[in-house]
Amino acid sequence: MKKNKLIINYPMLKWAKSLFPLCRSLTGKGTQQTLRFFKNINKEFKILKFKSGTKVFDWKIPLEWNIRDGYIQHESKKKFAQFKKCNLHVIGYSQPINKKMNRETLLKNIYTQKNQPNAIPYVTSYYKKRWGFCMSEKQKKNLPKGNYKVFIDSDLKRGFLEIMQAKITGKSKKEIFFSSYVCHPSMANNELSGPVLLNAIMKYVKEKFPKRKFSYRFVLLPETIGSIAYISRFKTLLKKNVICGFNLTCVGDERSYTMIETPNGNTMADRSLLAALRGKKNFKKYSFLERGSDERQYCSPSVDLPVCSFFKSKNFPEYHTNLDNFKLVTQKGLQDSFDVFKTIIDAFELGLYPKTKIICEPNLGKRNLYPTLSRKGIYGNEIKTRMNLLAYSNGKNDLFKISNLLNINLKEICEEYKTLKAKKIIS
Amino acid sequence: MKKNKLIINYPMLKWAKSLFPLCRSLTGKGTQQTLRFFKNINKEFKILKFKSGTKVFDWKIPLEWNIRDGYIQHESKKKFAQFKKCNLHVIGYSQPINKKMNRETLLKNIYTQKNQPNAIPYVTSYYKKRWGFCMSEKQKKNLPKGNYKVFIDSDLKRGFLEIMQAKITGKSKKEIFFSSYVCHPSMANNELSGPVLLNAIMKYVKEKFPKRKFSYRFVLLPETIGSIAYISRFKTLLKKNVICGFNLTCVGDERSYTMIETPNGNTMADRSLLAALRGKKNFKKYSFLERGSDERQYCSPSVDLPVCSFFKSKNFPEYHTNLDNFKLVTQKGLQDSFDVFKTIIDAFELGLYPKTKIICEPNLGKRNLYPTLSRKGIYGNEIKTRMNLLAYSNGKNDLFKISNLLNINLKEICEEYKTLKAKKIIS
Amino acid sequence: MKKNKLIINYPMLKWAKSLFPLCRSLTGKGTQQTLRFFKNINKEFKILKFKSGTKVFDWKIPLEWNIRDGYIQHESKKKFAQFKKCNLHVIGYSQPINKKMNRETLLKNIYTQKNQPNAIPYVTSYYKKRWGFCMSEKQKKNLPKGNYKVFIDSDLKRGFLEIMQAKITGKSKKEIFFSSYVCHPSMANNELSGPVLLNAIMKYVKEKFPKRKFSYRFVLLPETIGSIAYISRFKTLLKKNVICGFNLTCVGDERSYTMIETPNGNTMADRSLLAALRGKKNFKKYSFLERGSDERQYCSPSVDLPVCSFFKSKNFPEYHTNLDNFKLVTQKGLQDSFDVFKTIIDAFELGLYPKTKIICEPNLGKRNLYPTLSRKGIYGNEIKTRMNLLAYSNGKNDLFKISNLLNINLKEICEEYKTLKAKKIIS
Repeated sequence: MKKNKLIINYPMLKWAKSLFPLCRSLTGKGTQQTLRFFKNINKEFKILKFKSGTKVFDWKIPLEWNIRDGYIQHESKKKFAQFKKCNLHVIGYSQPINKKMNRETLLKNIYTQKNQPNAIPYVTSYYKKRWGFCMSEKQKKNLPKGNYKVFIDSDLKRGFLEIMQAKITGKSKKEIFFSSYVCHPSMANNELSGPVLLNAIMKYVKEKFPKRKFSYRFVLLPETIGSIAYISRFKTLLKKNVICGFNLTCVGDERSYTMIETPNGNTMADRSLLAALRGKKNFKKYSFLERGSDERQYCSPSVDLPVCSFFKSKNFPEYHTNLDNFKLVTQKGLQDSFDVFKTIIDAFELGLYPKTKIICEPNLGKRNLYPTLSRKGIYGNEIKTRMNLLAYSNGKNDLFKISNLLNINLKEICEEYKTLKAKKIIS
Repeated sequence: MKKNKLIINYPMLKWAKSLFPLCRSLTGKGTQQTLRFFKNINKEFKILKFKSGTKVFDWKIPLEWNIRDGYIQHESKKKFAQFKKCNLHVIGYSQPINKKMNRETLLKNIYTQKNQPNAIPYVTSYYKKRWGFCMSEKQKKNLPKGNYKVFIDSDLKRGFLEIMQAKITGKSKKEIFFSSYVCHPSMANNELSGPVLLNAIMKYVKEKFPKRKFSYRFVLLPETIGSIAYISRFKTLLKKNVICGFNLTCVGDERSYTMIETPNGNTMADRSLLAALRGKKNFKKYSFLERGSDERQYCSPSVDLPVCSFFKSKNFPEYHTNLDNFKLVTQKGLQDSFDVFKTIIDAFELGLYPKTKIICEPNLGKRNLYPTLSRKGIYGNEIKTRMNLLAYSNGKNDLFKISNLLNINLKEICEEYKTLKAKKIIS
Repeated sequence: MKKNKLIINYPMLKWAKSLFPLCRSLTGKGTQQTLRFFKNINKEFKILKFKSGTKVFDWKIPLEWNIRDGYIQHESKKKFAQFKKCNLHVIGYSQPINKKMNRETLLKNIYTQKNQPNAIPYVTSYYKKRWGFCMSEKQKKNLPKGNYKVFIDSDLKRGFLEIMQAKITGKSKKEIFFSSYVCHPSMANNELSGPVLLNAIMKYVKEKFPKRKFSYRFVLLPETIGSIAYISRFKTLLKKNVICGFNLTCVGDERSYTMIETPNGNTMADRSLLAALRGKKNFKKYSFLERGSDERQYCSPSVDLPVCSFFKSKNFPEYHTNLDNFKLVTQKGLQDSFDVFKTIIDAFELGLYPKTKIICEPNLGKRNLYPTLSRKGIYGNEIKTRMNLLAYSNGKNDLFKISNLLNINLKEICEEYKTLKAKKIIS
């Protein structure tokens, strides 16, 4: 029953490496270039703009932030915390500054991560005017005595927050929804892994299922303010059509598989992700109480969409530091995440509610799907899965529920479903 | 976010000590005086009378029992088991007697608690005519040989069983119900603690919430026959209005916190009590199979009211003996019980179904409810509770359910709810 | 409260021993004689015939198989694997053969059970033409070198597959359904135990409840093809009337008690069997994923009847070998299984939904069902069960649910129910 499977392997890591140097934030050139990079890969994307100052629910679209340079220069001319070497050195949305000051004054605006003395932390101040630098605790300790010039060449001007979405239509208006975010500067897992995975999934849907049953929606946006802006424009449509959605974040490492449930933990998103992750290495399921990304908006009380977040590792030491790089994120890590959603999409397109065409058990022996000689102890796991899939294929249980009931990964269930479908035993 | 809280401290222990000497029973002067004592504290109480012999469902109101004296006197004139020293010495509802008899005959009517040789047990015989004395096993063993005079100056006459109730009306006709019982002689935890707590709760409702949302009903009665008589008169009204009720018993010690669920364990009473007891020291939850007090009547199949029983300790060695005294019951023990119901009442009056007013997450930063600088690992438990309360405040989940979902004591949830309400984020 | 109970003891073991020698299969004389043996015990049985070649859903009724003799004869004239000594020696539905061959050719058609070297395994090939012999691994190893005559005197001809059913009508059209199977040759637990138990249950229903509340249906058939054929004829009727059903198999040993749940585990069959097995020695409950007998058909997606399978031991080493004999199956083993279904039937006939006639707790003291003297620690388990049964007798909970809620075996619940019914406290 083993089959040659088409190996689908989109160059996700290559995409991520190309985009790594850009200084992304809620707004600004780095984010704009990132969106256009992906629009080149998937032409169906359309860019949406929100003007600075626009009210979106309880929030206001911020000014557009651009930064060209930044550093600290000691009176000896030695430079520290150079933006051009690592864009985490300047805090996100930092005000411009060009000023001399003594070491003590400077230190008040320097941020480190004391428990990781070699890491440059990632710090932002979107909604309160600040300037500041990030460096490792070690670098901070080595700043020489004396006076400094502090220089940040940034500006905060009225402009736009950009979002990008694509709708890939299918026979049904019902949508599977994918969202990830593009507001983090040079960090790999959080968050280039999510956007590159989302683009690979989108290519797969188009290429593998040109005549698809379901519609698919893909969204790239800055976290929080971006998803709030997006929901403010599309809430009615999303509520009407989205039956299953996923927020993709930190999906490129090889350490574990993690899902965050919806508030009630009982949607198709919960069921499908649980089925696709069943039996995976270091699988962890968290309740909505442990949420942390854009599922916070998609599942908020009055939005209430069926959206789960998927992570590889939810808590990893490199998180929000310059250590989150391509030692952590690998093509294998990304590919394993891709396979999860490939399986879910395959299930949707294969037929969500299997139904046996036959009353009572089918005669599998005459179809070479069951041994013709009845002997003690000869029935393997494959036969057992086959019989159990048939036993629960009543046209009401979806493939995800069946996978969870049988405690067998969704991929295996789908393979068996294909076999039975080919033999016309099941529809 | 810490606040100066009004310390509410009603003199519950003082009330209990004043009432301790009275000989309470199903009927009679001790019980009548006890009711009038409480009517003095809460004037809204109204006394209801049931005539001896009246049928109440499957039962009949018993004769009124009064007792003035009782003892055993040895031929040496030495007295034993003197009612005037401890009213547990004569069994409840004992017939009068004035008779000489030998030691052997006497012993057949003496009750002890063999496994607690120093304790005088509490014994009653309400529905079968008996006379008898209770004493410690040790006292019994020391009864000298010879003849005795047995003397009980009691009478059983047609009279009344008395019950007392008060209704404190609010904007809604929906009622929170409290019941406790007044039929036990000189024992402190079982049962002076319940009545004094009930009276403190009643004062609190009136004083703290003069313009209250809900109505409250308070009942004091003799156990079993009293609650049956009460239900026989008010069943329709109770069924119509009571949404949440509590039977208070053994609430004055400091050892643990105990609740007994309703038969299905799924009413607002279950939910609220579980939320208010979450995280308490030695908290124990029993199913209805382990019931023992008037919840037996309130939750019986054809009455089926949402009433849980609350105990501090459900099983304590001093139970139904003269050791149940003010070494066991303390003002702190009573006050801790009071705080449980204060919290539940606060939740009812605060607004039972919180609902965020904002679509998507509110911008808490601009209201000083969230850090404006985004850094790794800076969000404390307070922020987490705040965000989680908001995430489940959909106008359908009540505060009790949210407390249980978040696994955070109801008091903390209410505090956070007040903060968010003050900021007009939630209604 | 102990009562003299009528000991009901049908000669199940005797019946099984009488039938043991017959060579049963899907069809043929052995099975026909077995059915007629039982029809003699319970005259209400009616035989139904299905012609060879008839289509039943996805299957076809096979040819009728009869066998008269079979053996292997070495050139030395010594005979092996003689059918007349043990009918497991020839594989079920074996083609006839009369041929000389060498040892090597012969061995390809000999089946053994390697991990049980002394056991003759039971092997069948109903749907593919084969001939073959079964013997113990030890016997096989001892087959001398040389040539052999292979002889099987069997035939496969157009004929009939037979099924037998009886309906014992009661006041209600709602049916309790029992099924077992008669297609196994000389093995005791699997499967003479099921048919003899079914016949004892049928006698009990008729003799104990001549004016019964419910109707009962009893079916004996060959496994799989028989139940499929049966369902193909009676599906509509079964769907309409069966409220609770049991498939009986391997019910004669003394080792354990086993049930297999329906696909959702929530029918009256699940509830009743769980209640009747509560507290039994080595009780095991398996989900439908572990099914193995005719519940596979009765619970298949489009049939979906409330039928559980009941086993004593589900997995036993003697299974499908000649070791499954009367060392394993005993009258006590059968009787213990009988008692399980006796209890369930008693519950159905006693009144399924107990309802207290009294509002609030009844006064049990005046009926001598409760102590009249109230003392600490005097209430035994019997009183507790009584009060708990009353507390859940709301006319909506069935006896099975109450037994499971109280965690007390159904038999004890029924006894207590009878007591309360006799006192007119409950209906």
